[in-house]
Amino acid sequence: MNELSHVDRRGQASMVDVGGKAETLRTAEAVGRMQVNGAIFRAIETNTSKKGDVLAAARIAGIQGAKHTWELIPLCHTLNLTQVAVDFSLSPETLEVECVCRVKCVGKTGAEMEALTAVSTALLTVYDMCKALGQDMTIGPIFLRDKDGGKTGHYRREGQD
Amino acid sequence: MNELSHVDRRGQASMVDVGGKAETLRTAEAVGRMQVNGAIFRAIETNTSKKGDVLAAARIAGIQGAKHTWELIPLCHTLNLTQVAVDFSLSPETLEVECVCRVKCVGKTGAEMEALTAVSTALLTVYDMCKALGQDMTIGPIFLRDKDGGKTGHYRREGQD
Amino acid sequence: MNELSHVDRRGQASMVDVGGKAETLRTAEAVGRMQVNGAIFRAIETNTSKKGDVLAAARIAGIQGAKHTWELIPLCHTLNLTQVAVDFSLSPETLEVECVCRVKCVGKTGAEMEALTAVSTALLTVYDMCKALGQDMTIGPIFLRDKDGGKTGHYRREGQD
Amino acid sequence: MNELSHVDRRGQASMVDVGGKAETLRTAEAVGRMQVNGAIFRAIETNTSKKGDVLAAARIAGIQGAKHTWELIPLCHTLNLTQVAVDFSLSPETLEVECVCRVKCVGKTGAEMEALTAVSTALLTVYDMCKALGQDMTIGPIFLRDKDGGKTGHYRREGQD
Amino acid sequence: MNELSHVDRRGQASMVDVGGKAETLRTAEAVGRMQVNGAIFRAIETNTSKKGDVLAAARIAGIQGAKHTWELIPLCHTLNLTQVAVDFSLSPETLEVECVCRVKCVGKTGAEMEALTAVSTALLTVYDMCKALGQDMTIGPIFLRDKDGGKTGHYRREGQD
Amino acid sequence: MNELSHVDRRGQASMVDVGGKAETLRTAEAVGRMQVNGAIFRAIETNTSKKGDVLAAARIAGIQGAKHTWELIPLCHTLNLTQVAVDFSLSPETLEVECVCRVKCVGKTGAEMEALTAVSTALLTVYDMCKALGQDMTIGPIFLRDKDGGKTGHYRREGQD
Repeated sequence: MNELSHVDRRGQASMVDVGGKAETLRTAEAVGRMQVNGAIFRAIETNTSKKGDVLAAARIAGIQGAKHTWELIPLCHTLNLTQVAVDFSLSPETLEVECVCRVKCVGKTGAEMEALTAVSTALLTVYDMCKALGQDMTIGPIFLRDKDGGKTGHYRREGQD
Repeated sequence: MNELSHVDRRGQASMVDVGGKAETLRTAEAVGRMQVNGAIFRAIETNTSKKGDVLAAARIAGIQGAKHTWELIPLCHTLNLTQVAVDFSLSPETLEVECVCRVKCVGKTGAEMEALTAVSTALLTVYDMCKALGQDMTIGPIFLRDKDGGKTGHYRREGQD
Repeated sequence: MNELSHVDRRGQASMVDVGGKAETLRTAEAVGRMQVNGAIFRAIETNTSKKGDVLAAARIAGIQGAKHTWELIPLCHTLNLTQVAVDFSLSPETLEVECVCRVKCVGKTGAEMEALTAVSTALLTVYDMCKALGQDMTIGPIFLRDKDGGKTGHYRREGQD
Repeated sequence: MNELSHVDRRGQASMVDVGGKAETLRTAEAVGRMQVNGAIFRAIETNTSKKGDVLAAARIAGIQGAKHTWELIPLCHTLNLTQVAVDFSLSPETLEVECVCRVKCVGKTGAEMEALTAVSTALLTVYDMCKALGQDMTIGPIFLRDKDGGKTGHYRREGQD
Repeated sequence: MNELSHVDRRGQASMVDVGGKAETLRTAEAVGRMQVNGAIFRAIETNTSKKGDVLAAARIAGIQGAKHTWELIPLCHTLNLTQVAVDFSLSPETLEVECVCRVKCVGKTGAEMEALTAVSTALLTVYDMCKALGQDMTIGPIFLRDKDGGKTGHYRREGQD
Repeated sequence: MNELSHVDRRGQASMVDVGGKAETLRTAEAVGRMQVNGAIFRAIETNTSKKGDVLAAARIAGIQGAKHTWELIPLCHTLNLTQVAVDFSLSPETLEVECVCRVKCVGKTGAEMEALTAVSTALLTVYDMCKALGQDMTIGPIFLRDKDGGKTGHYRREGQD
């Protein structure tokens, strides 16, 4: 398979036929990081330690983002996800916010786009809530760390953790 | 202004009141890059040179993403954007896809989240169409390069171009 | 099971994993009432008797509301409903509009949120069409009357009919 | 004005023309309560005191619900809300969860449907997260407490607080 | 102006900049017809005469379709419509269902796409409710009959009524 | 089966129960045409020959339209489509743009509404991008050409090609 997805012989967009694939358990885990300045980092930490809503709002946004993937990414199939979990960790030394999303479904196609969209949406939500303290945040890297199920088998990306 | 946005005194999420702000012309420009492997880079180039749909699909997805921002980012206000433009450039030396989104509106609040969401959605769409050729793509950095309008005035980020 | 749904050990929101549950026939029936004043009640009755659209609009809104549940309730799974029915009855003695919604699906999780969301959306739609005649309407009680399918078996709530 | 809203002379649904109305500041405040059993009440209290996400998730859902009103309530106009705030209080004596939503906009029509939809969505979200502990919750009453702006002037509902 | 809309100099899609246009009252009226067989025509007539929901459901769908135009048509701007009306008439001689939609807004760009999308969605809804009686229905012609407001002035299409 | 779909004995709208139907492979193919003037036809041709985005944008819009059918057509069930393909052809002699959409799913109900909605949305998108060159375009006929799967078996419409 040395070709683009969702593209026919003429190079035109076309939602790829997954009708012949088996319904199997699919899992995917995506990771994303965002670099912030010290004032923003402390504001997130303080809000979190005081039961504030910043990371909760971003977690909810990430979960909702996973469910909206079919609507955002034009060629994505609709999937009935059976689980979505979004977690954050804060690295005071590097002033980074890390977001990890794990999704599961039983379906004919993988759920990596759902995990990546969740991470992306969650980090954008953190950005939105911090931007009054400075716009010099940087989102990324965002990447797929783990994926299982389906014909291609287990995928694990090493080295960027 | 040394506080988080959309957060009240108790740290709870609350869509910030922009009712008292003036309606002014707002512009925002966001940039995002994605690192791909050589096979993916060549597939995108070939598709583009043969009038294929990969970058067109991502451009449409980005424009739609900008319009969906209110739905994805929980605390974002709804804005009536007056312009959205999404452009791509390919860097053969670095195997990078770069996406730039410029948005405009006449409103009470800035449109930087719309520009950032557009870039993020556009790159996720490229990812989706290339993933059959390998999942080792990395999205990021995504950042705001320029913003104008409103009380805070002109913002320009240098150095990451 | 003496714990909240969709909440992990730390108390954080997380769409609960239903991947291991069996796909079975699920049914749910929710009920809701709205108290209105005499003028509003007569306006609804007159519109209904003259083939007007008030209750038809609310019925359509309720059916659409059921299908939008995944988007409104952040932790809800997406379900492919196989049936949605929304009915109204008018009680002249108590000046109440009653709405009943019955839904069915074959899935891994119950459809009670879909039935409750449908009833809630349908009554809000009646409210919207009557509000020129007075805002002193009261929505509620809204509750689940019947639910079947899945491991917990049949649930029936008595006494509020 | 002794007629239904959004209904033409034949009784048919028709989004009422607000083009001739002035753009003024509009505010609306809606209230909703939900009765739960003791185990559920304690679970919500415990989750809240431990910085859990239950009420944060419901707050986000309420804010998003306000923004989705145009999509849920068929005849509602689209509004650009300038503020949405959703708050909860817990009454241990009555085992009630109370939700209050305040919205503002500058527009040609009132925002009461947005406030009522937010309250309804927020309480449904609490229900969804508590339902593993029992389905015998009752949503309601939900009502409009305060509204200002526009030709009809200030409205205040007394006596149900 | 002898060029495509929403297309830049390179032919690429780009939401056209309407920021410099004046906010004026805009109106648009679209018409659509659907040809059905005799059995379907009589079923629609009977349902309508018995206070059934077929045309009410289609009217609601059309109104909602107008509000969803920004989401369906990728380059469309979001508009805050101030009025949407959808009407049907039945022609027994030609076995045609005719749908007319009139929309209004105060905005920087015309609302013809909203009127056309409403008509299209309304007729698709009628189709959906009649298809058990035969799939040999034909949707069309759908066209813009009248448009006013903005720099291009009044447009009226004659001859297809 | 000589009755309307999605309508109960009283004529009221009700999403028909498909819970008892078998999950089988379903296919549907819809066709739609749009008549344009010579200037518009040449602009589409030129844009297409220069790798422009007009037909790509419409193709993406059609694919997205298919996925949005549940949201637009009130009584439609949600379906997980396994394939969507949208193609265009240009007829210089008749100045017509033709759009064909083929969809597939494994489900309990047919996907003809998805194919018809895709065609309709794709043609509206072409209209939107051409309207600066004249509003005298006519959409239609739009019809179902082929459908297979389910109890009713194969359907093929001849004669309008």
